[in-house]
Amino acid sequence: EQAGVAAGSLRGAERMAVHLLEAPADQVQALVQSLTRLREEVKTCAICGNWSEGEICNICADERRHPRLLCVVERPTDLWAFEQAEAYEGRYHVLGGTLSPLSGVTAEDLRIEELERRIREEGVEEVILATNPSVEGDATAHYLAHRLAPLGVKTTRIAQGVPVGGHLGYADSGTLRLALEGRRTIEG
Amino acid sequence: EQAGVAAGSLRGAERMAVHLLEAPADQVQALVQSLTRLREEVKTCAICGNWSEGEICNICADERRHPRLLCVVERPTDLWAFEQAEAYEGRYHVLGGTLSPLSGVTAEDLRIEELERRIREEGVEEVILATNPSVEGDATAHYLAHRLAPLGVKTTRIAQGVPVGGHLGYADSGTLRLALEGRRTIEG
Repeated sequence: EQAGVAAGSLRGAERMAVHLLEAPADQVQALVQSLTRLREEVKTCAICGNWSEGEICNICADERRHPRLLCVVERPTDLWAFEQAEAYEGRYHVLGGTLSPLSGVTAEDLRIEELERRIREEGVEEVILATNPSVEGDATAHYLAHRLAPLGVKTTRIAQGVPVGGHLGYADSGTLRLALEGRRTIEG
Repeated sequence: EQAGVAAGSLRGAERMAVHLLEAPADQVQALVQSLTRLREEVKTCAICGNWSEGEICNICADERRHPRLLCVVERPTDLWAFEQAEAYEGRYHVLGGTLSPLSGVTAEDLRIEELERRIREEGVEEVILATNPSVEGDATAHYLAHRLAPLGVKTTRIAQGVPVGGHLGYADSGTLRLALEGRRTIEG
């Protein structure tokens, strides 16, 4: 899937390059200015690590968000997915990626110390580990569960299983296995 | 997805029709005989409703399968998906579809009385409702949980959530919602 995404981006980038070659010079200049402004104005939220225009992002600044529930994601785009789904009313913490020893990404490169500090200082009751359902995402979730254990906070992992509207016949073996393992009691 | 499947089958059927028009007559005759034999020889397993060459299918005849665990699926193809995943060691029960009032499919059209009889007679301890994660599949699972409640058997539903190897950014809102709702404690 990663490869598919990369190939998709590449085709997109090629299309963009051709467009820019054919576009009037002033349009290209306007784009360059926008990009420069984007890099200057978009900061990282000092609390959660989300992209933000101000020092603190809109979500962290929103007092209606549940302060005791913290959803840990890899990237701001994962946070956006949950926000678009309108599925979650707690707060977030963006790790900045996953552990990846082969790529040289270790625990020190992720925002884990910040996470520990927030758990202690914000009185967090539950940390939802919402890293992606990939090998790296699962490994990072298990590492975090282990590392956060001494803090006494409840750690949970998002459910893995068959997606909504899917069909069992199209699900891969690993998904079917997790769907069976993760089965839950249904009341009549 | 259903529409995509139908379109896929249609293109497949078209290709097959063209091939048959161009094929030698004896090949077509051989196919006709195979199809006739297929319909004559493939029966429905008297116990679980799976397709079977004999009176009873290979899975029901296999005494190593866990007799107290019953996985309820819509169609034999769903059963095959679990078997291919090598994810399950219990027995199955094929409903023959889902409840679908608009299409005139009611509880009497599904193999539900047979299911109730099996639960009573085989000493089943847990019924895993593995209908598809669709509107009809979910509705049928809830109907079954309600209908089986008087029998005192444990009823569970397969987990719904993000599929293995997937990416949160590509998951639909409903899946993200269920992935959060269905989160489970992860030990450190």
